[in-house]
Amino acid sequence: MVIEETCKKAKVASVQMAKLSADQKNRALCQMADALEANIEKILVANAIDVKAAEAKGVKASLLDRLALNPKKIYNMANELREVSTLADPIGTVLSVYTHPNGLIIKQLCVPMGVVGVIYESRPNVTSDSAGICIKSGNAVILRGGSDALQSNLCIGKILQEALIETDVPVNAIQVINSPDRKAVEELMSMRQYIDVLVPRGGADLINTVIEKSKIPVIETGTGNCHIYVEEDANLEMAIPIIINAKIQRPGVCNAVEKLLVNSNIAKAFLPKIITELRNYKVEIRGDQETCQIMPDVKEATEQDWHTEYLDLIISIKIVKDISEAIAHINKYSTKHSESIITKDATKASRFLQEIDSAAVYWNASTRFTDGNQFGLGTEIGISTQKLHARGPMSIQHLTTTKHVIEGNGQIRE
Amino acid sequence: MVIEETCKKAKVASVQMAKLSADQKNRALCQMADALEANIEKILVANAIDVKAAEAKGVKASLLDRLALNPKKIYNMANELREVSTLADPIGTVLSVYTHPNGLIIKQLCVPMGVVGVIYESRPNVTSDSAGICIKSGNAVILRGGSDALQSNLCIGKILQEALIETDVPVNAIQVINSPDRKAVEELMSMRQYIDVLVPRGGADLINTVIEKSKIPVIETGTGNCHIYVEEDANLEMAIPIIINAKIQRPGVCNAVEKLLVNSNIAKAFLPKIITELRNYKVEIRGDQETCQIMPDVKEATEQDWHTEYLDLIISIKIVKDISEAIAHINKYSTKHSESIITKDATKASRFLQEIDSAAVYWNASTRFTDGNQFGLGTEIGISTQKLHARGPMSIQHLTTTKHVIEGNGQIRE
Repeated sequence: MVIEETCKKAKVASVQMAKLSADQKNRALCQMADALEANIEKILVANAIDVKAAEAKGVKASLLDRLALNPKKIYNMANELREVSTLADPIGTVLSVYTHPNGLIIKQLCVPMGVVGVIYESRPNVTSDSAGICIKSGNAVILRGGSDALQSNLCIGKILQEALIETDVPVNAIQVINSPDRKAVEELMSMRQYIDVLVPRGGADLINTVIEKSKIPVIETGTGNCHIYVEEDANLEMAIPIIINAKIQRPGVCNAVEKLLVNSNIAKAFLPKIITELRNYKVEIRGDQETCQIMPDVKEATEQDWHTEYLDLIISIKIVKDISEAIAHINKYSTKHSESIITKDATKASRFLQEIDSAAVYWNASTRFTDGNQFGLGTEIGISTQKLHARGPMSIQHLTTTKHVIEGNGQIRE
Repeated sequence: MVIEETCKKAKVASVQMAKLSADQKNRALCQMADALEANIEKILVANAIDVKAAEAKGVKASLLDRLALNPKKIYNMANELREVSTLADPIGTVLSVYTHPNGLIIKQLCVPMGVVGVIYESRPNVTSDSAGICIKSGNAVILRGGSDALQSNLCIGKILQEALIETDVPVNAIQVINSPDRKAVEELMSMRQYIDVLVPRGGADLINTVIEKSKIPVIETGTGNCHIYVEEDANLEMAIPIIINAKIQRPGVCNAVEKLLVNSNIAKAFLPKIITELRNYKVEIRGDQETCQIMPDVKEATEQDWHTEYLDLIISIKIVKDISEAIAHINKYSTKHSESIITKDATKASRFLQEIDSAAVYWNASTRFTDGNQFGLGTEIGISTQKLHARGPMSIQHLTTTKHVIEGNGQIRE
């Protein structure tokens, strides 16, 4: 019942949201940013409760790192909201006009989705980031973060809601689900009559659970089992820094490379070099049988490895006989996020870019660029790895839909 | 196993499909059209088996009408394929280009979805219409029609496949599921690794089953519980022909009007007129309590009526006190397909067009225009009533997605 009430309030708020001007929404975003900065102490107190409970449970260091806030992170959250306020507002844009021979004027307009549900894990900054993007795109949002971050999220949600009181954005445009219960999420995923789209943000398990259970249309985001393929003619002076960058610059994110495919004709020459470099950065190497034959100190990769997004300083290496085998392997195992080929040959590159079925395909560059800011979109709410509605970095415009508005003077169909 | 084999073949075909030029696809479409016309007798023989079995089962006349083919219907199917061949090909269009400060060129291209699954009911023409749109948009298609039309669909599918042998379109780009078993559909709906989007075409039951059970992203199409609201200031000379047209011109289609809302201030004057007119066309009238008070010979509508898409010569009438009640009622009960307001007041019209949450919203026109051809899109594969990916009439471009293609010369992320 509580979840349904929350959804109803969001639906009512969404009607109001759809009517707001860019200025009204931008003023609210700046108020939200100011409120976060004015309440740093309060947020840190709530966050300390979550961190303490997580420590007591003995969670991984990487989770604690994502969960723990500090003043700098909170200033970043505020600045992210201000940044969103500066982006273009797509709502109301006329996307097409068709004048029917009978005089009907048929316009297709950009309109908000309505109510967006966001289900995420333990990073409390996702609460304000998602709220900001949803408000900017004219939507009401229902936020459900991981139970580990519940106190932080409720505190941030309350501060954002209070900031809206003095603005034209209705308070219920931002709601945080006040329950750590898993049943609450399941109920949320059944609220098809109120929620227009569900965006899961997190690891493969979260995404798969949502896909499996949701009755609401879902945009899959974020799982990245990314590949780099080094062709036999590759400039190895270029390949090495690209692979190192894609693996170690930020190993915990979805656009980091997880798998390296190497053409068999250069494997003997190239593997010792790249493996030495990777190990200098403490990267654990796993490899297929052929890799292990060339480099006997490499641990053999299992079938499971080829499916896994490590989000860690681990990489698995496979030797392939040619580009066809590379493409087939990638299309079989990748999560369709980002893949790159290193080659001097434009024909081979072109084939790779065409046949690889992923959101972003690279030629001679690091996979780390798949990101809203790097693609010139401003901020992002996630990287879509599905083909429906949005593919790749999702920003303001990807949380909108269209509506056909038709003006007549009595037209009937012949 | 059979279903999975079909899906695998479609996936292989889809890789080839994505590379074809507009000419290659258009030539195949014309071959398909010629083949249908050359095999009219064969199709009619197969269809007669289906019709005979359906008659023996005692199915409704309207179903028999949709199921039964004749030479004219087959010529129409062929012409539809030729028509699709003349439409613009969106594949390969560069949708945006962003040059990163570091020199990376990030292009967003229009690409095919890959494999499209279409699940439909007893109209065999949907087999060739869907195949045509999917081929034109560069996709492989798996077709699963109603078991009542199995022989017709298999025959049409075989003719279309044979027509592809002499073309550059792979034969497995069109496959008809060769099983009337419901389990085959359920298996199909679980093939997320092979099928990129599922399009159910049919009544509310079919659509709801697919939404409930599919693990593949779905585009809902076609259920239309459409409303017309007559404001107190409406030009009644305009309102009557619009309502008659929307109800009787083709009552069995999704954009026909099913509900009439009338402002209470004009109900006493207007209801006798419109009800008389509707009854002249043999339309059964149902009404809310107030309608029945004014017109005692009207049958009282049940709660279920307000939810129902009749697809028949039936309409339910409700009296509302103002536009707010009309909007609230529509947003509660409509299937978000097409709704119209009849009013002289631009302010009221504007509010209706803004607040009604449907794919197509009309001012002073019949709802019957929500259609790919009428909207200037050429043909359609259905009317999407969801907000994700496509809304309203769906044509070639709505069966495409995008891909980011990034060309570099060694760029790494700082």
